[in-house]
Amino acid sequence: MASPKWSPSDAMTRRPTNPDDLFVAARGGDRASLARLLSYVERGGDEARAVARIAALHVGSAYVVGITGAPGAGKSTLTSALIGSLRRQGVRVAVLAIDPSSPFTGGAILGDRVRMQSHATDAGVFIRSMATRGHLGGLSLATSEAVRLLDAVGSPCTLVETVGVGQVEVEIARNADTIVVVVNPGWGDSVQANKAGLLEIADVFVINKADRPGVDQTQRDLEQMLELSEIATDAWRPKIVRTVGTTGEGAEGLWQAISAHREHATRDGSLAKRREQRLRNELRAIIERRLEHRAREICTGERWDAIQNEMLARSRDPWSCADEMLAGIL
Amino acid sequence: MASPKWSPSDAMTRRPTNPDDLFVAARGGDRASLARLLSYVERGGDEARAVARIAALHVGSAYVVGITGAPGAGKSTLTSALIGSLRRQGVRVAVLAIDPSSPFTGGAILGDRVRMQSHATDAGVFIRSMATRGHLGGLSLATSEAVRLLDAVGSPCTLVETVGVGQVEVEIARNADTIVVVVNPGWGDSVQANKAGLLEIADVFVINKADRPGVDQTQRDLEQMLELSEIATDAWRPKIVRTVGTTGEGAEGLWQAISAHREHATRDGSLAKRREQRLRNELRAIIERRLEHRAREICTGERWDAIQNEMLARSRDPWSCADEMLAGIL
Repeated sequence: MASPKWSPSDAMTRRPTNPDDLFVAARGGDRASLARLLSYVERGGDEARAVARIAALHVGSAYVVGITGAPGAGKSTLTSALIGSLRRQGVRVAVLAIDPSSPFTGGAILGDRVRMQSHATDAGVFIRSMATRGHLGGLSLATSEAVRLLDAVGSPCTLVETVGVGQVEVEIARNADTIVVVVNPGWGDSVQANKAGLLEIADVFVINKADRPGVDQTQRDLEQMLELSEIATDAWRPKIVRTVGTTGEGAEGLWQAISAHREHATRDGSLAKRREQRLRNELRAIIERRLEHRAREICTGERWDAIQNEMLARSRDPWSCADEMLAGIL
Repeated sequence: MASPKWSPSDAMTRRPTNPDDLFVAARGGDRASLARLLSYVERGGDEARAVARIAALHVGSAYVVGITGAPGAGKSTLTSALIGSLRRQGVRVAVLAIDPSSPFTGGAILGDRVRMQSHATDAGVFIRSMATRGHLGGLSLATSEAVRLLDAVGSPCTLVETVGVGQVEVEIARNADTIVVVVNPGWGDSVQANKAGLLEIADVFVINKADRPGVDQTQRDLEQMLELSEIATDAWRPKIVRTVGTTGEGAEGLWQAISAHREHATRDGSLAKRREQRLRNELRAIIERRLEHRAREICTGERWDAIQNEMLARSRDPWSCADEMLAGIL
């Protein structure tokens, strides 16, 4: 049975190091054990595989909200406000802050964590920054794994916040059941988000910093974009909400919009479909990454050098060189 | 011995269909045989592999000029002007017009060919549009193959013109010994090109339509960009030339700039290095494409469905599913 709250952080206590024991402890609410499991996931390797195996068997139906948007749009402040909303409803919440641009935790994410630290002593809140540290599938697959782990240890709701607007961020946001895209008054931001395809994946738009000029125009622009995007009659029509993250204004409305999407997606079956498609895509991505990895392993060593030299000497063509290198595995 | 000119197109003559005989005929100057070999390359498959094998053994040191830039910048008109320059020097020239956005030849490229048709009856000119028609490696690898084939049949100079500005176009342009990037007066174009990374790969910039307002500003912008890009003292510094493609003005200057780059790159060894690196990259790309292809083959069928269903039923994790699917090949 998963614990309804997290133990305080306590680095002095001795803890197990094997994934099975850590998982039992994390499910019992031990914060440090969960942190260690997430480190395993970040690093990839055998322990990560073991964690993946255990998590898959214990996964429940935790709800996952993705929060994305351009840097400086106020995602962390909003995430913090959402944590507040959830805690007032008595819901336990886990937060993953993901920065694809940073190979190690630090910088912006550390700053973000500071902004969330009003929740740091709350036993119902678990906050974790994630960076890629060797996970074969990169940050997107590592995030899927981390989301599944948090679900498996009994956390009912996970907020995944990404930093930046790029293809990787879009991929990571797609791990969520409800995708929140944060923009600011002024169309520049939205244009930047649009480039990466963020606007297309939004279930809820937040115009944050809504106390600034231009908010009405931005709302009209988003509405116009939605009108042009030919949403089917029965399908979910992305909601637009306004917030002022710094004061918490609008946070309840944001949570209501997220909940409305969740209810709609549960009712019409699109949530189940999305989750299924996500898992299928994940499997396909893992297979691609493993083959790429194998290709990198193949393209090295003496035989590789020798074959390349024959090719460079024009005594054979690259296709037959590739055949020879791949002979053992294809 | 390769023929110094191409036979007139003559669809009525019976020709061989096997790659070896076609190659001998193409090397003897038979235009239709060369066209058929290029069709094989486009289509991929066994004949393409045979063509690759033959071409690799006969490759010489044809010079390859890539011409790229935003749609409407005037690339075809410039290409036509370059053909004129080369022909006046008595140099035989082959042109590949590549359109990654079109699965079949037609549309814009047909229009472009019309613009080049003043050279259509010239026995020293061979013009061919290329699109991808099933080649495993996509248009970029098919272009490498076509460039090598033109070299192998004895054509001393190939112009590769791409349509559009995207990642694929950048990849294709990288097949060239000298990369010409065409912009127009007005910075918008250059910004668009910059997004895709075209400006970074240019050896020669052409400001085409240089009779239009804004040409001085565009030149200053490009110069400023070059100043900021920290080019090593001995390295080639991209030249900027102005042309008016429609009148042919500046075409000789463009050819001089291309020749200057060629001489510099030959002298300092960077041409040889670039060609070697290109071939290495090509081999790596072929290996990646073949593994991806294999992954697509694997991810299908009854076993694939069964494994996915186990995963969707949460009875196993995606990593172990991937292991099972890849068991035979990794």
